[in-house]
Amino acid sequence: MTATEPRTTKTTSSNGANGNGHQIGRSVQRIDSLDKVTGRAKYANDLHLPGMTYAVFLRSPHGHARIKSIDTSEAEKLHGVVAIIHADTLARDMASVVEDEIHASRRVVKLFPSVGETVKYQGTKVAAVAAVTREIAEEACERIQVEYEILPALIDVRESIKDTAPIINEPSTPADPVADGPWAGLALRNVAGQNHRADGDVEAGFKAADRVFEDTYVIPRAHQTYIEPHVSVADVAMDGKVTVYTSTQGHFAVRSNLANSLRMPLSKINVVGMTIGGGFGAKFGGIVDAYSVLLAQKALRPVKVTYTREEEFLDARPAPGAVIHVKTGVKNDRTITARQVWALWDTGAGSGGCGSTSRVKGVYKIDNFKMDAYDINTNKPAPGAYRAPGAPQATMAGETQINKICTEMGWDPVEFRIQNMREGEQLAFRETLKAVADKAGWSTRQKSDNEGWGVAVGEWTNGGGPASAIVSLHEDGKVRIFYGLMDITGTDTAMAQIAAEVLGVRYEDVSVVRGDTDSAPFGTASGGSVVTFSFGNAVKRAAEDARNRVLEQAAEHLEASVEDLELADGKITVKGNPEASVSFAQVGQMALRSKGGPIVGRGSFASEPSATTIAAQIAKVKVDPQTGKVDITELYNSLDVGKAINPMACEGQLEGGLVQGFAWGLMEQMVYAPDGRNLNAGLLDYRIPTALDFPDIATVLVEEPTKNGPFGVKGIGEPPIAPGVACLISAVADATGKWIHEVPLTPERVLKAMQGA
Amino acid sequence: MTATEPRTTKTTSSNGANGNGHQIGRSVQRIDSLDKVTGRAKYANDLHLPGMTYAVFLRSPHGHARIKSIDTSEAEKLHGVVAIIHADTLARDMASVVEDEIHASRRVVKLFPSVGETVKYQGTKVAAVAAVTREIAEEACERIQVEYEILPALIDVRESIKDTAPIINEPSTPADPVADGPWAGLALRNVAGQNHRADGDVEAGFKAADRVFEDTYVIPRAHQTYIEPHVSVADVAMDGKVTVYTSTQGHFAVRSNLANSLRMPLSKINVVGMTIGGGFGAKFGGIVDAYSVLLAQKALRPVKVTYTREEEFLDARPAPGAVIHVKTGVKNDRTITARQVWALWDTGAGSGGCGSTSRVKGVYKIDNFKMDAYDINTNKPAPGAYRAPGAPQATMAGETQINKICTEMGWDPVEFRIQNMREGEQLAFRETLKAVADKAGWSTRQKSDNEGWGVAVGEWTNGGGPASAIVSLHEDGKVRIFYGLMDITGTDTAMAQIAAEVLGVRYEDVSVVRGDTDSAPFGTASGGSVVTFSFGNAVKRAAEDARNRVLEQAAEHLEASVEDLELADGKITVKGNPEASVSFAQVGQMALRSKGGPIVGRGSFASEPSATTIAAQIAKVKVDPQTGKVDITELYNSLDVGKAINPMACEGQLEGGLVQGFAWGLMEQMVYAPDGRNLNAGLLDYRIPTALDFPDIATVLVEEPTKNGPFGVKGIGEPPIAPGVACLISAVADATGKWIHEVPLTPERVLKAMQGA
Repeated sequence: MTATEPRTTKTTSSNGANGNGHQIGRSVQRIDSLDKVTGRAKYANDLHLPGMTYAVFLRSPHGHARIKSIDTSEAEKLHGVVAIIHADTLARDMASVVEDEIHASRRVVKLFPSVGETVKYQGTKVAAVAAVTREIAEEACERIQVEYEILPALIDVRESIKDTAPIINEPSTPADPVADGPWAGLALRNVAGQNHRADGDVEAGFKAADRVFEDTYVIPRAHQTYIEPHVSVADVAMDGKVTVYTSTQGHFAVRSNLANSLRMPLSKINVVGMTIGGGFGAKFGGIVDAYSVLLAQKALRPVKVTYTREEEFLDARPAPGAVIHVKTGVKNDRTITARQVWALWDTGAGSGGCGSTSRVKGVYKIDNFKMDAYDINTNKPAPGAYRAPGAPQATMAGETQINKICTEMGWDPVEFRIQNMREGEQLAFRETLKAVADKAGWSTRQKSDNEGWGVAVGEWTNGGGPASAIVSLHEDGKVRIFYGLMDITGTDTAMAQIAAEVLGVRYEDVSVVRGDTDSAPFGTASGGSVVTFSFGNAVKRAAEDARNRVLEQAAEHLEASVEDLELADGKITVKGNPEASVSFAQVGQMALRSKGGPIVGRGSFASEPSATTIAAQIAKVKVDPQTGKVDITELYNSLDVGKAINPMACEGQLEGGLVQGFAWGLMEQMVYAPDGRNLNAGLLDYRIPTALDFPDIATVLVEEPTKNGPFGVKGIGEPPIAPGVACLISAVADATGKWIHEVPLTPERVLKAMQGA
Repeated sequence: MTATEPRTTKTTSSNGANGNGHQIGRSVQRIDSLDKVTGRAKYANDLHLPGMTYAVFLRSPHGHARIKSIDTSEAEKLHGVVAIIHADTLARDMASVVEDEIHASRRVVKLFPSVGETVKYQGTKVAAVAAVTREIAEEACERIQVEYEILPALIDVRESIKDTAPIINEPSTPADPVADGPWAGLALRNVAGQNHRADGDVEAGFKAADRVFEDTYVIPRAHQTYIEPHVSVADVAMDGKVTVYTSTQGHFAVRSNLANSLRMPLSKINVVGMTIGGGFGAKFGGIVDAYSVLLAQKALRPVKVTYTREEEFLDARPAPGAVIHVKTGVKNDRTITARQVWALWDTGAGSGGCGSTSRVKGVYKIDNFKMDAYDINTNKPAPGAYRAPGAPQATMAGETQINKICTEMGWDPVEFRIQNMREGEQLAFRETLKAVADKAGWSTRQKSDNEGWGVAVGEWTNGGGPASAIVSLHEDGKVRIFYGLMDITGTDTAMAQIAAEVLGVRYEDVSVVRGDTDSAPFGTASGGSVVTFSFGNAVKRAAEDARNRVLEQAAEHLEASVEDLELADGKITVKGNPEASVSFAQVGQMALRSKGGPIVGRGSFASEPSATTIAAQIAKVKVDPQTGKVDITELYNSLDVGKAINPMACEGQLEGGLVQGFAWGLMEQMVYAPDGRNLNAGLLDYRIPTALDFPDIATVLVEEPTKNGPFGVKGIGEPPIAPGVACLISAVADATGKWIHEVPLTPERVLKAMQGA
């Protein structure tokens, strides 16, 4: 999975205008690489506080059941237990530490079901124990007696909507009957949310079509499978101040969550974001931190919560599955006249997600579009974000059908897409698709028996979020960035490059320090592809603020005007007079004796519009006709990154996202028994790909700059996961002649399709 | 030692111009008080790192000796020893971790004497051992065999200068013969430094005098006796990055010291300043941190150094003693015609200090002044700073003689001083002396038998140093200061008040976080009375920077112009329209969604001229004629503080400094045997006062603002220690009729004087 391919660079001069152009666009070693490979990086589980205790959860073994009683008396007798909490003790225990009863009771609702209430998925937390060892806490959990009344469970959204289905979240009234499509006339049950949209007139569009296609696509739940599980250590001081050390994508988000769920003032909470071993959208807080804090408040000792891998599968927030029905009309002139979509999203015991259905429309000019999308409850945990939330599912439906249409109509799927793609300022849809097609040699592609090619694209627009940074120049001429950024993917490295670029020093002379929420200025969480866009702007502004002071100081020393100076190679020089220069180290030292003092710049950014990007992917597969096993033999991959700050890191992002998308299509699925039990809650049974499962990936970075991104950057973390499922299905169809509408494409499923079942 | 007296406030309106005037000038609870009284504050010795080991030093038992051999072989065999270092192993051991041999050898020179070199004071570090327990390290030290050739020692500067004295620091050539005074014609030996000054023509001045006075004053070494001894914990990562947790007045100073002494790049060192339990000038680094780092580098495990109290006396950096000869000419019109001074400062095995002799001139208009001052080596540790370095010693000589002159001439010492004091802008010498005289009822003072009154003043001008601060507004409307300030005396509290004042929020809504040298912007060390002056300016500027953003954000929201807004009581209001307002919390939240992003202000400051202040003190004593015991019965104290940010904290500073000055005069002294051994190396034998030794102190704060201090602040940490010794001697003279020229005024010494010895 390495790429050493040349990049398509559309712009350099216009974007290098703010710097010397040497430090960005440079493939540098990650700033955290040495810490990580030497084991020096501190993950939350590496933390050992004096007197620390260990938490274990008592979880429901049932997918759906009513709690009849909870008895902790035997557990409380166990020597070494320091705190036991569950819903009915919580209001009592915690009343003294919160300001009023309303707040105390609010906690209960969110964190545990009470006696008389139901557990809605296997693994629901029923109680938590902290003890001086994990083993004692486990034994205490075993001693807690919980009586359940088992209820019928729902694990398929197509069952949940039926008018005979049990209701998961009472009270619940059926939705208005669906107007048309696969569920026409049905008043859906267990609807947790819905999203409807209508552009133009789909009926007229379908009438104008020469041909109408209609399919149902099914995609299961997938798990983000970050390497590091959830870990949280809470420490409560005598004055009530809470310090939480946690594995999170956003420590400020954890602080807000805790303040809200525990009704505490923000100023009483300090969150230390430890080195994170992956998140992919699952680690914004809410799963573990409130429990470690509540236990620590009760025990008056530090408490560590470490999820097991099984707990990650039972009670984290994986990506939702979906059933998506798509209908598309096309004319013989290769235009799309209408597209309509109906979708049921498996939202487990929670809600949210179905809005992503609008991504089925894709990157195309379609005047008539209509969607009716529903969040449907099942007896599974609530879903969460996974890289580009909802995009792989919606893109599977939209892009697979585009390919199917092209196949049946005899059109080239690359040419068809290029003809129908939206255009606009800051967009490079066509260039991106052409780049990957050129790379793959699409127009002259070859295949043997049982081989096939697939292509798909997925779009994404990065978010923006509030970010701040401090950039200071030290006496040794080195530059330091201080902020509240949680680096998951190498963003600290990009920030160092941006500061180096602005200041005219080497990347190697910039170091980066992350502060906790007490010390760092506010930083948005690392998700939504916001980081390089938002923090990049904050760091750029902070570096510019520092640069102004550097120039003033140098101008005074060199007896020149600021306009006559240039910054490069770690020094400030009078233009046209290379002899007249002063080094950054000298300026850093002079500043300490100057009226202005030490050189410290600050920069903040919140939200400005970003521009849409697409990931375009091409795969070649070979299908074993005896077993149905799919081998991916070639992979091509392009993305419009706006501007590649660290091309090597961009390539890593693209390849990682691509693999996650294809893996969802090829092998990943969370499997549930009819009673709601998860049947593959561990990495032995939930298969994720290894390096041997994928070929090398050829990657092309396209650079169409945005106006508002630093140096033109677009957020790129999420888009590469979007097209994979559709690309894989289409390649398998090209190899086998069979369109399979449900993933993953396990050998069994492919073989069955090839056998015409 | 409490004071609840009204204050003389000269200015408020002019200085409150930048704020609402409610948050400064307010006596508030110290921001760190709860942490300290509940034991939550983390001192360096509270730190326990996994795998930590403990260091013990092998020290010279001799005051002056040549090292003939060092044999560590038996110590190395001891199980549990992880590192042994001494001069001759150091170059070899450390060559691999430094860049070149020159650097490696530089370390050796500074840190240990080599075989063949001499130890110059008892307690000189000869070797250091780290082991898994302190007991094992102690045993290892006992097993190290060091052979010494004992040399004659010098403990009195008057002996060191003689032409028969042994030389302590070879090579050494005698100084040019002294021109006049007590050591006229002598080519002084063991001179480590000298300082000469001549204003006007002293010979002419003495000729013009009606009367000339001449005395020799002798003051011993005193120890700063901070509660917390030196502690340093060093941790070295695999990549060589050093983290030091230490008790210091300046963590950036420790970083620089380590970088210099260990020849390491600044960026490879992070210093965490832990809560400090007192420093008084002794904790700027150099005594322990280099050793903990060297041991940790060798052991590849964390190493903790904790000084014992005995080690603090043997091998820290106490205040130098001095022998000061003063000659002053006065006319009958109460003017001073000339003053000349010759001084020998006991600089131990080091150098520095004698420049303070110029303080003998005092706060008076004296056209003709001459001084010849020498640093003289003795077999004692090098001295360091103690509060106002050199001021108590010089002021003892200068101010005692002023009082003696007044007594002999029949002049009132308050009136004489007021007549002769310098005047100038930003100075309030006379007002300060008058304030304390009024407070004490000087003009109508009474005394019984064996009672006496003394008065003295001491001047000081605070330094300035580079400082930076970050002030941010959070979503809950709270304000946070982040910086690299080591708070010893309550300065964090003053900084919170300054930020609150500028922003118009309550002091209680501001919190303060100290960063380590990796995360905080540069901050000067806490010494030289610089903190409230320098950091106060940095915080004020940072708060103003944040305020600009607050006002912009509020103006946009309120549809008003920035000029029409006012900040007070945690909200921003349109002037004249109290209904039109927005809270800080709202602004903090809006900023996160605004184009400008989170509100973060930065401020830096370096050096601007400050103005001189004086401390004026009056004491009443009663002397027991049978025993010579001196009881201080009344104490009055005033200081020109410029502007009292937190009057309660100012009073604490004044009282603490006063007590240290009087204690030096009354009881404190480091006592040495002729062979250089310290005879009172512990708090059982080195007496410091308790609360029972002093009466309540009446304190008056005078406020003559400086131009460059924030809100007019002058640095006040140091001046109150200056006048005490002179004030006490003079009060005892008033009680006994005897001028005693040497302190401390132990009962023996006073009784001997009363008996005419």
